[in-house]
Amino acid sequence: MSFMRNSWYCAGWSTEVADKPVHRKILGEEIVLYRTESGKVIALGDKCPHRFAPLHQGRIKGENLECPYHGLQFGGDGKCVFNPHGEGKIPRSAKTDAFILEERGGALWIWMGEPEKADPEQIIETEFLADKTFVSRTGYHPVGGNYMLVVDNLLDLTHAQFLHPETVFGKGSADRWQVSKTGKPSEGGEEVMQEVWFEETEDTMTAHQMMRNKPKPPLWDPIVDYEMTDLHSWITWYAPSNLRLTLELSERGSNEGPATMIVMHFLTPIDEFNCYYFFAIGWDTNIEDQEAADRVLGIVLQTIIDEDGPIVEDCQAYMGETSDLFSLRPVLLPTDGVAVKARRRLEELIQDEQEQAKVAAE
Amino acid sequence: MSFMRNSWYCAGWSTEVADKPVHRKILGEEIVLYRTESGKVIALGDKCPHRFAPLHQGRIKGENLECPYHGLQFGGDGKCVFNPHGEGKIPRSAKTDAFILEERGGALWIWMGEPEKADPEQIIETEFLADKTFVSRTGYHPVGGNYMLVVDNLLDLTHAQFLHPETVFGKGSADRWQVSKTGKPSEGGEEVMQEVWFEETEDTMTAHQMMRNKPKPPLWDPIVDYEMTDLHSWITWYAPSNLRLTLELSERGSNEGPATMIVMHFLTPIDEFNCYYFFAIGWDTNIEDQEAADRVLGIVLQTIIDEDGPIVEDCQAYMGETSDLFSLRPVLLPTDGVAVKARRRLEELIQDEQEQAKVAAE
Amino acid sequence: MSFMRNSWYCAGWSTEVADKPVHRKILGEEIVLYRTESGKVIALGDKCPHRFAPLHQGRIKGENLECPYHGLQFGGDGKCVFNPHGEGKIPRSAKTDAFILEERGGALWIWMGEPEKADPEQIIETEFLADKTFVSRTGYHPVGGNYMLVVDNLLDLTHAQFLHPETVFGKGSADRWQVSKTGKPSEGGEEVMQEVWFEETEDTMTAHQMMRNKPKPPLWDPIVDYEMTDLHSWITWYAPSNLRLTLELSERGSNEGPATMIVMHFLTPIDEFNCYYFFAIGWDTNIEDQEAADRVLGIVLQTIIDEDGPIVEDCQAYMGETSDLFSLRPVLLPTDGVAVKARRRLEELIQDEQEQAKVAAE
Repeated sequence: MSFMRNSWYCAGWSTEVADKPVHRKILGEEIVLYRTESGKVIALGDKCPHRFAPLHQGRIKGENLECPYHGLQFGGDGKCVFNPHGEGKIPRSAKTDAFILEERGGALWIWMGEPEKADPEQIIETEFLADKTFVSRTGYHPVGGNYMLVVDNLLDLTHAQFLHPETVFGKGSADRWQVSKTGKPSEGGEEVMQEVWFEETEDTMTAHQMMRNKPKPPLWDPIVDYEMTDLHSWITWYAPSNLRLTLELSERGSNEGPATMIVMHFLTPIDEFNCYYFFAIGWDTNIEDQEAADRVLGIVLQTIIDEDGPIVEDCQAYMGETSDLFSLRPVLLPTDGVAVKARRRLEELIQDEQEQAKVAAE
Repeated sequence: MSFMRNSWYCAGWSTEVADKPVHRKILGEEIVLYRTESGKVIALGDKCPHRFAPLHQGRIKGENLECPYHGLQFGGDGKCVFNPHGEGKIPRSAKTDAFILEERGGALWIWMGEPEKADPEQIIETEFLADKTFVSRTGYHPVGGNYMLVVDNLLDLTHAQFLHPETVFGKGSADRWQVSKTGKPSEGGEEVMQEVWFEETEDTMTAHQMMRNKPKPPLWDPIVDYEMTDLHSWITWYAPSNLRLTLELSERGSNEGPATMIVMHFLTPIDEFNCYYFFAIGWDTNIEDQEAADRVLGIVLQTIIDEDGPIVEDCQAYMGETSDLFSLRPVLLPTDGVAVKARRRLEELIQDEQEQAKVAAE
Repeated sequence: MSFMRNSWYCAGWSTEVADKPVHRKILGEEIVLYRTESGKVIALGDKCPHRFAPLHQGRIKGENLECPYHGLQFGGDGKCVFNPHGEGKIPRSAKTDAFILEERGGALWIWMGEPEKADPEQIIETEFLADKTFVSRTGYHPVGGNYMLVVDNLLDLTHAQFLHPETVFGKGSADRWQVSKTGKPSEGGEEVMQEVWFEETEDTMTAHQMMRNKPKPPLWDPIVDYEMTDLHSWITWYAPSNLRLTLELSERGSNEGPATMIVMHFLTPIDEFNCYYFFAIGWDTNIEDQEAADRVLGIVLQTIIDEDGPIVEDCQAYMGETSDLFSLRPVLLPTDGVAVKARRRLEELIQDEQEQAKVAAE
């Protein structure tokens, strides 16, 4: 399987990399992240070139990382800078890979492609993590499925009423939803009105959903008091696999400024059949209430770890030893439209990248 | 590996399939069983044709089964009958496999072959499960070995004295058995007399064993009081892998009608290296005593789950990546006779079936 | 991968093989060890030739081993000597492999090569296990890595200060060590003086290390009272993978006879990617103190099971599906010298053995 290489992938959250090295596997490569004494986060190949011990089990020594096995030390450029044995000679080949790593707005971004193409300006903003008018939480979860299966999941949020009835959608809402589609009132005499639209650029796609007269989803319980809501949500896919979901919730029919919530979903391939699901959530209402914030995080964890993760893993298991969805001839529904467009776009972007690399090599 | 396809395989017990869908993998195919609101048990391919989610995690909706991921609903014929999204359009290709399933005498039977050859009259009777003069128990256990290794196990019950000394054979009996073979009395001054004979039809084989003067096996402790017994047992193999063991136990030398016990062993291939071991046991004596019945079930569970299952799995592990016993040139003993005949017969039946399918295809 | 076959491999400790058969897998072969009624330890192929059941789950019957499944009995030469069924006929092919096994000084040694080349005089001595002026402990641990990775580990003990700072090396010593290399005094005003030298024969290599003015390593805490020591240690590799480490510890600058400790490390390949690590440790000081002996054993277990085992397994995992270290072009340091020489020597010895076998076959 090919990955897009000239792209920033999320490698973790700033808070994860403190006084101990951290292991990651990204696009099939074993990587160690560590924060130096001076505060910079470094990304190196995790295999010591001497005996292939995992450097992430070693100790941070100032700006360097010490191998746990025989104590060779490596600097931020991957070169061995200290051999504690005998005369201390360091063979020229004693080096490991070094990756470009940028720390921005509380997130760590790694560049796995051609170094000269790395432009930190292209890094996705997570400005709300540092915004004092927001409260936020971050986390991650490894998922045993191809990263694009999680992107598919996020680009077709119609699954929420079936997979997340008790968290992000709201219990009992499924029937009401079906009724609204027919134009007939639901049991409670209510009707959810739904409108969807779509926007795109060269490497982004955005799906909007406007729902009026919707009972408040449980995710919002710790944040706002009213029960019946109007909810505008839009999710933007940034190629290859980073998504930003924005939600604006108002009391039904109200003209007051809405409560805003932002959820970042960064999918970083571990290999063809596994990925990291890095998530961040922030909102601008009831922000002093840390207990409420932890309840919101609990709902997000249930949604991602107990609901989305397992179904993606089950789908991958039933797809067998492939990540090529289309080769399995899935039945496609109109609601798959955005996800299918994103997959097609990514295929083009990867092909372009590979052709450019080929031309450059000639 | 080839399986016999035109045959009824046990897919479970009626009691297993109630208000929740149940997953099975049979002859390598992922299958979901569910009981509709009207009470019929349906067997469908478990992979949703949309995104390959496992249907068995979904909800029963009247006569249909709802996918847990996006809520498509499938009917008993495998066709998608409801799409809850947008205009509700259903692509013609939106269907999953449907299998013929018959519920008989408390057992569920699935037909994995050509539909027009499915004849419910050929289903093996488990009449004692519904017979009020019997008390019975059912269960199942997945075994990590080729299904024919379990059939081998059952068609050569001489293993009981070594593998089941404390359950179905009786502790300390092995020495007595060896002594009896030489015609000399055992320590206790007793001698077990044994006689064996054999019957067969085109697709069944029956091995009889008559033992006189045998100390009562522990399995019978909860059922009858006397200690020294005469035991006539016969096991019938129905191709490909269903067996019925009948035991008639009398007090030594008595002319009174014996106590009867029936044990069904249905081996259903999961794949080449795994099978389900479905078992049912019933007997006609001391039938009001539910505590005794549970003790009998406990002994059966120990025998199958703690003794037979593990040795079959160990043998499979030592056979390596094959299920072709004969290719490994096992040493065959006279006591392997029936099991070897059954394997040879099954090979012929599978070959016949494949030749017929070839002719039909031309 | 090829192994050296004409060699004695440690198969276990005498105390392990008592009244129950024991399973081992050596050079890829499944083996059962059992002690007969007359006290001899027998090594047979563990797969019953009848149905491939694991003989090690069976019962010892006098001089024979009984299969757990159908009760066939095998003698010390691997031949079936008893069939408990029917007429008791024993097919001529009813036999399993038999291996030469010698029990010497508390250890069991198996010969996996040409029987006529087996010379018990070549077995490595473990005389201290029976020496009443020593106290000793034995054990073993399976390691998920190629056996030569453990040999590498042992032939370059410079890893101790990084991997075993709290057990065999001593906490805080690493810095002192680095300082001593520069010739400057360490923080405590102390300086460890180190000298190394090397000896070899055709199939052994010995690396000596003399350290003066060294704080006593924790391993010695339960044995001697003084804190500052002089330590002479030498480790001898016997091809293919057995090592003897001898340590002589004296109080710093003292002329009194040292305390002696012997540690045997026998690495026996399970297969290309797994090995048994058999170890024995004995010492001649404070030998009446069993509680101290158990503390020493605890430190050894921590060193081998918690520290050396895992790093070897991690290195193997990062080497991927190969055991050919040199094919991965490791960076070699001067301190790898002995380990590299031992690997080269072993390659020659295996090649010689294979050429001789080829000539003999012609």
